[in-house]
Formats: sequence, C-alpha cells, structure tokens
Amino acid sequence: MEKLAEQAARNLKAIRERKPLVHNITNFVVMNYTANALLAMGASPVMAHAIGEVEEMVSHAGALVLNIGTLTEEWVAAMIAAGRKATEKKIPIVLDPVGSGATRLRTESARKILSQTRVSVLRGNASEILSLQDENSRTKGVDAVHGVDEAARTAGILAAELSSTLAITGPVDLITDGRRVVRVANGHPLMASVTGTGCTATAAVGAFLAVDPDSVSAAATALAFFGLAGEVAGDSATAPGSFMIKMLDALFTITPEQLQKGCKIETD
Amino acid sequence: MEKLAEQAARNLKAIRERKPLVHNITNFVVMNYTANALLAMGASPVMAHAIGEVEEMVSHAGALVLNIGTLTEEWVAAMIAAGRKATEKKIPIVLDPVGSGATRLRTESARKILSQTRVSVLRGNASEILSLQDENSRTKGVDAVHGVDEAARTAGILAAELSSTLAITGPVDLITDGRRVVRVANGHPLMASVTGTGCTATAAVGAFLAVDPDSVSAAATALAFFGLAGEVAGDSATAPGSFMIKMLDALFTITPEQLQKGCKIETD
Amino acid sequence: MEKLAEQAARNLKAIRERKPLVHNITNFVVMNYTANALLAMGASPVMAHAIGEVEEMVSHAGALVLNIGTLTEEWVAAMIAAGRKATEKKIPIVLDPVGSGATRLRTESARKILSQTRVSVLRGNASEILSLQDENSRTKGVDAVHGVDEAARTAGILAAELSSTLAITGPVDLITDGRRVVRVANGHPLMASVTGTGCTATAAVGAFLAVDPDSVSAAATALAFFGLAGEVAGDSATAPGSFMIKMLDALFTITPEQLQKGCKIETD
Repeated sequence: MEKLAEQAARNLKAIRERKPLVHNITNFVVMNYTANALLAMGASPVMAHAIGEVEEMVSHAGALVLNIGTLTEEWVAAMIAAGRKATEKKIPIVLDPVGSGATRLRTESARKILSQTRVSVLRGNASEILSLQDENSRTKGVDAVHGVDEAARTAGILAAELSSTLAITGPVDLITDGRRVVRVANGHPLMASVTGTGCTATAAVGAFLAVDPDSVSAAATALAFFGLAGEVAGDSATAPGSFMIKMLDALFTITPEQLQKGCKIETD
Repeated sequence: MEKLAEQAARNLKAIRERKPLVHNITNFVVMNYTANALLAMGASPVMAHAIGEVEEMVSHAGALVLNIGTLTEEWVAAMIAAGRKATEKKIPIVLDPVGSGATRLRTESARKILSQTRVSVLRGNASEILSLQDENSRTKGVDAVHGVDEAARTAGILAAELSSTLAITGPVDLITDGRRVVRVANGHPLMASVTGTGCTATAAVGAFLAVDPDSVSAAATALAFFGLAGEVAGDSATAPGSFMIKMLDALFTITPEQLQKGCKIETD
Repeated sequence: MEKLAEQAARNLKAIRERKPLVHNITNFVVMNYTANALLAMGASPVMAHAIGEVEEMVSHAGALVLNIGTLTEEWVAAMIAAGRKATEKKIPIVLDPVGSGATRLRTESARKILSQTRVSVLRGNASEILSLQDENSRTKGVDAVHGVDEAARTAGILAAELSSTLAITGPVDLITDGRRVVRVANGHPLMASVTGTGCTATAAVGAFLAVDPDSVSAAATALAFFGLAGEVAGDSATAPGSFMIKMLDALFTITPEQLQKGCKIETD
C-alpha cells in the first residue's frame, strides 16, 4: 500500500533525525544485538531494569520495549513499574511475550503486563499471541490456522479484547488493531537462524512508535524495514554468522528511499 | 576411529532433522553466542533461569546445559532445580564448571550440582576438572600432567568417582567414562582468542546428547564437530572477530559427510 | 608526545606477554564484546559479580573494571566489595559511570563507589563525569564547554577533588590527574554507532593499568590503542556490524610498532 510505504520512509527519516531514546527491559540473550540494531537504525537505546531507576529512565524515553525472554519476578516487577509510568506519561509501549504459552510464569507475566499497562503493540509469533487469549475470549474454539482470512479475523477479535495492536510475525506478518488489517511480506529465511531477530524486530517497533503515533503504521513500517534489512543481508550472506552482521550493516545503510521502494506492505 | 566418525555424521543429521530443544542455564557472557551456535547447528536453544519456570521448561527439552560462568546463589539453585527435574525425566545434563578452582563459590557450586543431579557429561579444562576431585579421591597425589597416558588414567578414575563422562578439552580433547577413552584432535588456535568457545562447545555437547544416548560418543562427536567448525573458520579468518563469525557460519554449513571425513577422533 | 607513544608500545607488548587477568563487573549489554576485546588485545578477562566470590576473584587480578551500565543495588554492593579488596591489595581500579546524571540511582551509585574505593581512572563522557561533581565543588558555575582550555582546567579541579585520573572521551579524549593534561585524538565516527565502545575502552584502560602503574599514561595509551583499532577497522568497514567485528580483529593484529607510529597523543 503506497501510503504506508511513504510513511515507512518518513518514519525512518524521523528516527535518523530525532534519534529517539528507546528504553529496553529485555532479555540477556539479545541485549547486545538489540542495542546495536537500534543504534544502527539511528535510535538511542538504553537498557535499564533496576526497580529504583526504571520510572525515572522511561520518563526520558520516546518508547518502552518490554521483553520477557529471560524473565524473573523482579524483572517483571520492573517492567510493570516502567510500564505504568510510561502509560501515565503517554509513552508508547511494545511488548514481546517471548515463550508465552511455554511456561505458566511466562503466560501469566505477559498477561499481567498487558492488564496493568497500556501496551500499544504486542509483537510475537502466532502461538505466543494465542496463548494470551482469555478463557472467555470469543476467539476460543476458532481454528486460527484455518486460512489467512480466519487468522486475521481471530487476530482482530483478540486485538480488540486486549486493546492492543497485534503484530503477529511469520513468513508474512499480520498487523491488526481489530479494525485495520495490514500484511508485511518482507524478510529472509536466515532470520530464523539468528537468535533474537524477533526480539530485535520488537525493538525496531519501539523506535518507530517513538516517531509515529499510529500503532498500526508504526508496527507495519518497522517490520517492513527490519525484514528488508534481512533481504539486503541475504543478498550477500549465506550463513547466519555473516548474515547477522550484514543485517546490522543494512539497518544502517538502507535509506528512506530504498525502504519506500522495497517495503512489501499490503492492507486488506 | 571410523565408527565414531559415522556416528558424528548421524548425530549431526539427527540434530538438523529433529531440532532438539536445548535448555541452557548459562552465563551472561556467552548467552548470545551460544544461542546462535545452537541455532546454526540446527538445534533449538532456550535460555531460562527463573526458579519458577525451569522445571517446566526443562521438561520440554532434549538436553539441559548448566554453566556456572557468572553464577550467583540464586542461579545455582535454579540449576539444581532444573537438574533434578531433568534427572527424574532422564533428560541428559552437561555441566560446564567454568572457573571451578578459582573461587570457593565456583568449586562448591560445581560439586553441589554434581552431587544433586545426574550429570551425563562434565566438560571443562584440566584444572577445572581436577578441582572437583574429592579429598579422598584415588587421583590425589597422581601427577596428572605426567604424560598423556597418566592423564587418561587419572581422568578415568575421576570419571568413575564422579559417575560422569569427562570431556577435558585442550589442544587434544580427552573423553572418558572410566572405561572407554577417546581423543579428539579437531580445533584451531584462534578458538582460544574468542570468549566462550569452551562454553559453546559444552552447549554443542548438549545438542548431541539430545540425539545420542551414549555420553562418550555424544561428547566426542560434538567436540569433533565444534573443533572442525574452528578449522573451517580458520581457513579464511586470521583474527578473532572474523573468526567467531565464520565459526557460526561453519556450524551451519558443515554437512554430515564433511564431518565424517574431517573429524579426528581416536580411541585408545 | 613521543614518550607516551613509546610507552603505548611497551604497554601493548607487556599485555601480550603477561596476559594480565582483568576482573570485570560490568553491564549485560557489553559483557561479550568486552570479553572478546580484552582477549583480542592479549589480556585474560574474567566476569564475576557474586558477592560471595568477588573478593577472592579480584585478588587474582591485575586490574578491576567497574561499570554501572545495567546496575542494580546488589551489583553495586558487589562492585564496592570487589573495589575495597582491590584498594586494600593495591590493584588498580577503573570506573565507568555509565549514565551517571540520567537517573539518581546511577549518580549516587557512581559517587558511592568513588568514595568507598580507590579509583585510579574514571572513564566517561563529559556529562557523566560532570554529574559527579560535589555540590561544593570549585568547578560549580564554571562553563565547562567554554573552550578546550577551560574544559581542561575544570577537569583538573575535578580530578583533584575526586582523587582520580579522569579520562573524558569524545572526538578528542582528555586525560588529566589534576597536574598533567594529555589529549588523545585517535578514533573513528563509526565507534559511536556500536554499543559499548565506551565501556570497552574502559576495559582496555583496565588492561593497560595492569601493566602500567602511571594512571595517566595507562589511560592515554589505552585510549590511543582502542581509537587506533577503530581507525584500522574504519579503513575497510563502512557500517557498524562489519566495523565492530573488524575492531576486534584490529585489537588482535595491531603491533606495538604500529601503535607507536599511529597513536595521536599530545601533552599540554
């Protein structure tokens, strides 16, 4: 969709110009890669998780990224403290419910964050997102994998129930706030062989939210940009080590014009 | 030894086909590299250390990797909880006693894990492994460095006393369960200039244990594979930054056939 | 200055020969990169933060690196315990007050470490360093950015008040102990697009302090070396992913002779 392609270019330009501070409370595995990715694209990352400073830190930020990948109860408490302050100050939040559904601690922590803060975008894979359905959800019993239209309908109901824009990533990403449905087809198979590409896509959504108040267009354009970086990396790398480094390079070198041309965003 | 070379190829093929879940409770320094190495070789890594979820998480896993590199008491408690559940469910455990011998906390923590869980493979360098001897060990007073045969004999006694297969890495790796002795000569000098290659070798042993119930052959073939990746990386890299990236590439590109040809495994 | 260029070469040679153990209590984001950088330059890094082992660990070390980048109260307590033991044993300490000034927890923690341990070198950017002024400091009211001479004068007063050598990094680094003033002009713009280059420069200062008891020359030569590695990396890399890998390579390949020729150190 042409308007979103233009918006993608505008967002990337704004990130490079304004260098928004993105506060991350994320997992140990991806902290370095995420920080490097945010820096490469032009944002200013900060990682801080101490309960004694997260509220002060997030107050300076343009967006808050929460990620439960290597959670403990203390970290979840810090995420909620930061999230509440962000909610109060109308700073957008993106949540990555890594592994939700795999253990009770993860599912419950993701639900707790969702219920106690205002999450603008919830970014995960289909099984993580579906694990967050309430027992009384109207989506229960719906076969989410029964065709793409059905999936979009289910996602739309869930987005409305969770009051968040959902960004469900996969070969084609699905972004919906319950009213609009956008699909992003950028990406490269090697992204699945690098740890934390999902988490880093979430951080990219954070950077885009810092410059674009529309959570659907921020999420879609961020995922298109991140996926395009994968495509550019895949042009010259054939194995995951080189690929992950070239992705960082691409996040730095892709211009707004290239992004506008290269992004594969469609609206239903 | 030809049979182990064939087994190496079979193991690598099985990892690529079955993508076993490998649960890691490891140190902060190597988490990212370890996760990327496991992904590159074909396994599915998960990092989780909260006491409230490790038992549930390990129950899904094909192997458990414990590493005390940046330990605290809380982390050791989580390792033991996960290790006990793994022991109960007959999920193989590999332990890396990083820095055992350097501080009392490390030595005691490694011993505690060994005594409270069933460790299939203990992977470390000679000084780390020797620090785990009991005061009454029959190895006491034996000069372990007095020739390779003496070293193997000492290791064999210790393996029997600790009821674990030992994988003592160095220029030539020594693997023994007290009965069989296997040596692996794969590797590259630059591996010593990259942080966490030992820890990542341990994680590779975890992936191989997930598909090979024989702890001696799992450890030997994993170390041969990991060392071969170092050799392949060393063919084109001459400094540690490029080398560490090319090692990830090699873990992804080495085929079972290449491994069968390239592995340098000998049995005594 | 020729004498410092010679000292730089001597220091690098000494690190490669003696492989000093550098104990780091640092942040999660940079642990892996810092460890790899220290290994690449020839030092022996160890990361350990458990309150139960830091005193024992630092006793083996040639230098202690403290970094509050992802601090919590427990970590600061461990830093102080390690720092006191290092002070007692006359092991040099370098402190990186990451984000001091951004939150109260950071500013207070940095001050606490400074007051309870003997910090040889304090390495940060201008705003971090200035946040550590006491309310009664003679530097208060001085406009630090009003020309380079004024900045050096302010820094000198602060160095004397804090009883530490200050290493204030920027396009040109300023090193002063209140008596001597040294400037280092090595570096590359892409260093600002890689996370943790400041933190890693601090760790390099740690390695140089382990072989050079003069904190001004240790800090200046370490920063010249680290900046030169950036220049070498920038010769072949044009984006931050490739650049960060080539910097690790350069830390490994730069010879003492190259460093002596390439370092840009001036004394006032």
